[in-house]
Amino acid sequence: MCDTETLADQIIARCQRLARFSEDEGSIRRTFLCPAMRECHREIGKWITPLGAETTVDAAGNLRIVCPAANAATGSPRLLIGSHLDTVPNAGAYDGILGVVLAIAIVSALKYRQLPFAIEVIGFSEEEGVRFGTPFIGSRALAGSLNEELLNRQDAQGISIRQAIVDFGLNPAGLSQAKVNQNTLGYLEFHIEQGPVLEHAGHPLGVVEAIVGQSRLEFTFTGHANHAGTTPMNLRYDSLAAAAEWIAAIERGAQNTLGLVATVGAIEAKPGAVNVIARETKLSLDVRHANDDTRRSAVQHFRSQAEEIAKRRGLKVRSNERMDQPAVSMDPFLVQQVEEAIRATGCEPYRMVSGAGHDAMIMAGNVPSALIFLRSPGGISHDPAESVDVGDVAKAIDCGVRLIEQLAASSEFQS
Amino acid sequence: MCDTETLADQIIARCQRLARFSEDEGSIRRTFLCPAMRECHREIGKWITPLGAETTVDAAGNLRIVCPAANAATGSPRLLIGSHLDTVPNAGAYDGILGVVLAIAIVSALKYRQLPFAIEVIGFSEEEGVRFGTPFIGSRALAGSLNEELLNRQDAQGISIRQAIVDFGLNPAGLSQAKVNQNTLGYLEFHIEQGPVLEHAGHPLGVVEAIVGQSRLEFTFTGHANHAGTTPMNLRYDSLAAAAEWIAAIERGAQNTLGLVATVGAIEAKPGAVNVIARETKLSLDVRHANDDTRRSAVQHFRSQAEEIAKRRGLKVRSNERMDQPAVSMDPFLVQQVEEAIRATGCEPYRMVSGAGHDAMIMAGNVPSALIFLRSPGGISHDPAESVDVGDVAKAIDCGVRLIEQLAASSEFQS
Repeated sequence: MCDTETLADQIIARCQRLARFSEDEGSIRRTFLCPAMRECHREIGKWITPLGAETTVDAAGNLRIVCPAANAATGSPRLLIGSHLDTVPNAGAYDGILGVVLAIAIVSALKYRQLPFAIEVIGFSEEEGVRFGTPFIGSRALAGSLNEELLNRQDAQGISIRQAIVDFGLNPAGLSQAKVNQNTLGYLEFHIEQGPVLEHAGHPLGVVEAIVGQSRLEFTFTGHANHAGTTPMNLRYDSLAAAAEWIAAIERGAQNTLGLVATVGAIEAKPGAVNVIARETKLSLDVRHANDDTRRSAVQHFRSQAEEIAKRRGLKVRSNERMDQPAVSMDPFLVQQVEEAIRATGCEPYRMVSGAGHDAMIMAGNVPSALIFLRSPGGISHDPAESVDVGDVAKAIDCGVRLIEQLAASSEFQS
Repeated sequence: MCDTETLADQIIARCQRLARFSEDEGSIRRTFLCPAMRECHREIGKWITPLGAETTVDAAGNLRIVCPAANAATGSPRLLIGSHLDTVPNAGAYDGILGVVLAIAIVSALKYRQLPFAIEVIGFSEEEGVRFGTPFIGSRALAGSLNEELLNRQDAQGISIRQAIVDFGLNPAGLSQAKVNQNTLGYLEFHIEQGPVLEHAGHPLGVVEAIVGQSRLEFTFTGHANHAGTTPMNLRYDSLAAAAEWIAAIERGAQNTLGLVATVGAIEAKPGAVNVIARETKLSLDVRHANDDTRRSAVQHFRSQAEEIAKRRGLKVRSNERMDQPAVSMDPFLVQQVEEAIRATGCEPYRMVSGAGHDAMIMAGNVPSALIFLRSPGGISHDPAESVDVGDVAKAIDCGVRLIEQLAASSEFQS
């Protein structure tokens, strides 16, 4: 067996190799069941053969690599480890991909170890939601929630998810077989953090306790479009000034609530002329927190502030809720086991929440799940500058191997 | 002679009649030397004939109606009264037009009066800057500042001002004859306020002491585009949050400086996505004040605040100045005479500044000028809902007649 440093170098090289399989020349883009995804599967297949494992592609296009248990009986319990193989446009090489390549390295490191369960590595076909505006197509198939409505959704060319599956040479009738079964013990996912928290705190690895819930709303302040020269300050009904006051209040509110993030990312002022007071200003609001009550009460507070600001200024405000997605907890036993494994690698374990959705969020509804973050240099992701430190990757391998050994030894996990 | 109430009704009816001459069906739009402007001149011509006055169109397309003095010698001194006949798109019926129609009514009311000077009513061809992006084409011709560079400016169809003059059947070689000469005693302009100040203060008429100076700038805050979910509040470089803090500071600063108006009317945040912290936010700033030092020091203060906010947040900010137009004072003697005439009508005179540019601003560089505002109901202008109260129009006629009688009796004015 190779040492973890050599495996870590290999992981970086393999992520870079998979980055070549792209729909776009000169940048990485690999969406649901595009031709580049087939090349990606083929490349991974070459790495698997020496491990004596079998690779298949399920009806949702997920790459599934079953590494038999030491006592290989059909229907023996399985531990799933994986992440996704699709990317956003102009992507980096590690978001998702690293979790799959790392899982294969962990299996490779465990090759001659006796385990009481099989390990199945999964390369999900779709997590980013680029092609169909619908994320998690791969993990939804394992959760059994890829329903007819979803299968009929169309991409920009009018091709449905169902048709894309057929076009790739797969059979949608086999989707029910993609579902996790009663013998599945759990799901582990390694993923780059895609944020600055671990780097800022000085930790290579973090264990995710929960994936935050998310609210998305649209607010519109409406005042009067008056002349910027002839309307004194005290006779204005300026929708943009009201919106600015509200953005500042949101920022203060989020800063004062532990773990809350609130963002106004989009703004439009009409008529939008230099010399006209803005009649109408439309803004987006994105609010996330690990606790759904905290998040909903923050949204309610921001809504009240908008109403108070509008009323005081003689304006109107209206809001529309576009999303209210509950938080998802990771399995407490697995979280504690990951913490122990991280500690065993010589690192201080760091509990955190994930501000972004991941396949583990979907899997957690069906099997005990854990999500382990690797530090993201500069917090950069969804960008060609996305990277990962090779030393952190070595720590992650070490952590993964120790975690599986712990789970193999735990009667609580396998019962 | 008619009483002022009847003349006021006639003025409203005449403004409404001129509103029919439009480039657009169903709304008012009458730009520099469009065919509708010729119809407008023809209609006004019909009203003039009974007054025994001559109408001509000068080389800049200004309608000029000379009403001879009692002792009509060629080269006798002249008092100019007027405003502009062009409009913005989707205009109201009174902006500019009212000042021309009112001037004719005043001349009509003065018909049998002995005056020591001729009155020339002027309907300027262009003030709004719609067709060529250059305002005051008409009054610049009288000021002699319609230079080659301006004459070569083109509209959206590539037609220059010079060519538009030729196309209307006029001769650009005659432009020098359009200039005011040494015998011009002064310029009076009646105009709707286009703002809410007189209505708010409860005055039908206002006398303008100065037209404010104006600064226009563009500011750009630049931070980092991070993930709205994975980036904690304390690790953000949010350009839109910085911009919002600055907009609030500008509003407070303008509220605390007497007579200052400052407006952010245009804003653009990039990438402008719900779930991405805005990397770059670009904003416009419009600052106006009657005192140029006050205005420039306010701009400098707002610039310093932008820099302080950016520095504290770890962002960058840059600014570009697009305009720095000095304030223009109206003639103090005429201001005082207007005040006296307003008082003689039974109204309390109200001194104010104009937040918008007017032909009087251009004329003031050449001849003693005065600008009298009529109350704008709701402060509305540049909109089909723009209106004027018929009682206020009657007051304006009365004020105009008394003002001219005062000036006719004043040795100071004619010397």
